[in-house]
Amino acid sequence: MNLCDFAPEYIRSIQPYQPGKPISELAREMGLDEAHIVKLASNENPLGTSPLALDAIINTLHDIALYPDGSGYELKAALSKRYQLDPEQIILGNGSNDVLDLAARVFLKPGATAVYSQHAFAVYPLVVKMIGANGISVPARDYGHDLPAMLDAITPETRIVFIASPNNPTGTLSSENELLRFMERVSRDVLVVMDEAYYEYLPEANKPDSISWLKQFSNLLLTRTFSKAYGLAGVRVGFGLTHPDVANLMNRVRQPFNVSSIGLVGALAALHDAEFVQRSYALNRVGMLQLTDGFRRMSIECIPSYGNFISFRVKGDPSNTLTVYQNLLQQGIIVRPLGIYEMPNHLRVTIGLEAQNKRFLEALELALSELN
Amino acid sequence: MNLCDFAPEYIRSIQPYQPGKPISELAREMGLDEAHIVKLASNENPLGTSPLALDAIINTLHDIALYPDGSGYELKAALSKRYQLDPEQIILGNGSNDVLDLAARVFLKPGATAVYSQHAFAVYPLVVKMIGANGISVPARDYGHDLPAMLDAITPETRIVFIASPNNPTGTLSSENELLRFMERVSRDVLVVMDEAYYEYLPEANKPDSISWLKQFSNLLLTRTFSKAYGLAGVRVGFGLTHPDVANLMNRVRQPFNVSSIGLVGALAALHDAEFVQRSYALNRVGMLQLTDGFRRMSIECIPSYGNFISFRVKGDPSNTLTVYQNLLQQGIIVRPLGIYEMPNHLRVTIGLEAQNKRFLEALELALSELN
Repeated sequence: MNLCDFAPEYIRSIQPYQPGKPISELAREMGLDEAHIVKLASNENPLGTSPLALDAIINTLHDIALYPDGSGYELKAALSKRYQLDPEQIILGNGSNDVLDLAARVFLKPGATAVYSQHAFAVYPLVVKMIGANGISVPARDYGHDLPAMLDAITPETRIVFIASPNNPTGTLSSENELLRFMERVSRDVLVVMDEAYYEYLPEANKPDSISWLKQFSNLLLTRTFSKAYGLAGVRVGFGLTHPDVANLMNRVRQPFNVSSIGLVGALAALHDAEFVQRSYALNRVGMLQLTDGFRRMSIECIPSYGNFISFRVKGDPSNTLTVYQNLLQQGIIVRPLGIYEMPNHLRVTIGLEAQNKRFLEALELALSELN
Repeated sequence: MNLCDFAPEYIRSIQPYQPGKPISELAREMGLDEAHIVKLASNENPLGTSPLALDAIINTLHDIALYPDGSGYELKAALSKRYQLDPEQIILGNGSNDVLDLAARVFLKPGATAVYSQHAFAVYPLVVKMIGANGISVPARDYGHDLPAMLDAITPETRIVFIASPNNPTGTLSSENELLRFMERVSRDVLVVMDEAYYEYLPEANKPDSISWLKQFSNLLLTRTFSKAYGLAGVRVGFGLTHPDVANLMNRVRQPFNVSSIGLVGALAALHDAEFVQRSYALNRVGMLQLTDGFRRMSIECIPSYGNFISFRVKGDPSNTLTVYQNLLQQGIIVRPLGIYEMPNHLRVTIGLEAQNKRFLEALELALSELN
């Protein structure tokens, strides 16, 4: 028996998360020019980064030899003002992935369970497994969360329910009523993690007033991110909004300097860049139409999406889907295969700039024509 | 019983790490001008950041809407070349704190134990406690690690031994011979985490050839950081060097994008900035003499240090130490009290620029004269 055999079985059996292929990796593998590659694989913002955030980051570069402010005082003060919450209700993370992980570390232990939906974001089962807790995956309904079934799946050992709305990679949304009904019925000793990473892409009419629910439900944790509509995926900032007691516990397992000073400063400035978020939202609506129109022209079935991405089905055997994925790579277009999401027939494409969407659609048409 | 009562007792009893007071916080609290404050509290590099790293970061800002390369391909390739190791032996972290945490998550579980020295870096007991494992603190010898006693403290439940050399906050060094003797005697089913965050500040003659030991010992994990001599504390990059099997397990619990793209790019450039590291080293040697001379003039006892900081003793009751600490704060000088390190009579000061060291010594002289 050697050292590594002493690591718990639940650690040794983890399959690490497979991120979208980086541009540099594809360029290396296929001998392509990086400038020619279009990456529509990771739901990044095609407009880039909030210009206010970029300016703020440039102005703080002289200070990066110093540790970040471990309490995130200024960013939390700004979020607190924006959302009318106490700073004690806010927890900052190295991306919202970190916030999900902190919740798991606090509320799960070996033997506990967590409930999530089939086809939901891959990080939920991962953070559950890292603790040695057990995940309960509840079959989806039309690719979306079946909230009543998720409620029924809760056992006395369940400590966390993960709900993604909109969900990645399906783009499905649970309605405000469904979510509120869920919160009213779920036991107060189960933490409901409501992942709203794509909230900023929702039309106003579809935005649930979830923050107001924090007053009523001490077992609610909302997670949001600066990686999408604010364009800061590269510097890793997410946050959670919750009851002060929950945030307090999560802060105890948080690495003291989990968010970089660049991240703190960039997020603070981006939060005030309403114009950039509005432009990102508007571009996404137009691009969504462009892509769904293109899919319709090609008789491709796609899942109606509320995010900045859309998942579509390649007809026939799942091997067709991988062939199309590879063909797109060869054309310099990176999308995301969804095999690990139990959707082996689907590919997910991020909504890009008009020209990127056009290139993707043309490349897809070619790839499909070459299928047979 | 409410939700938070379900969190494990070992989580609820954690006292979060207290970082050095940020300049902005002291300015707020004391109504001081930020420009007038000298922070010598967090062992940061007084020369700032490697200029090559700053240039590289500026050149990558256009890309921060994209997720980082989760595999850290280029940085790992450069480290691999520098240290003549396989990339599979390298694990990247959001600071070396993250690497320490990953090791604990892989090798500890409730009931396991980890051994570390009294007065050793505060993050060791913290990452152990977060898992629900038990820490065994071995009494120090002259403030340094008592390696034979640490060896004796190992039980069949021990999975990790943390050794810091140089150690923070004492600055003590274990000799190459002592370390090698320890490795030869320790069971191969215990992971030895050798924390070398301050390695770059060692004179050549004192640098152990620890990397060569990786060939011989599959249970060794060396941790290093870009936060100190490379001047990148604000962007959070550390790394571990170990056996590929250990790195593989640690990668399973690593958050997929734990290191930011700014961090990856900055660290890669800093690694090649030998001139900056050399200047940082040289400045530190001169500053060390300046401070130890000052302490001697004032008959202040200090612990001989191999780091970029030095811990000194304030005579009399520990309340004197806190009075001096507060007095220094009022004068705009931030140092670190060491009560949580069981060193309530000591303060730790980071070695700064000549003018900063001078201001610190003058302020300390005033503070001491006001004690009685």
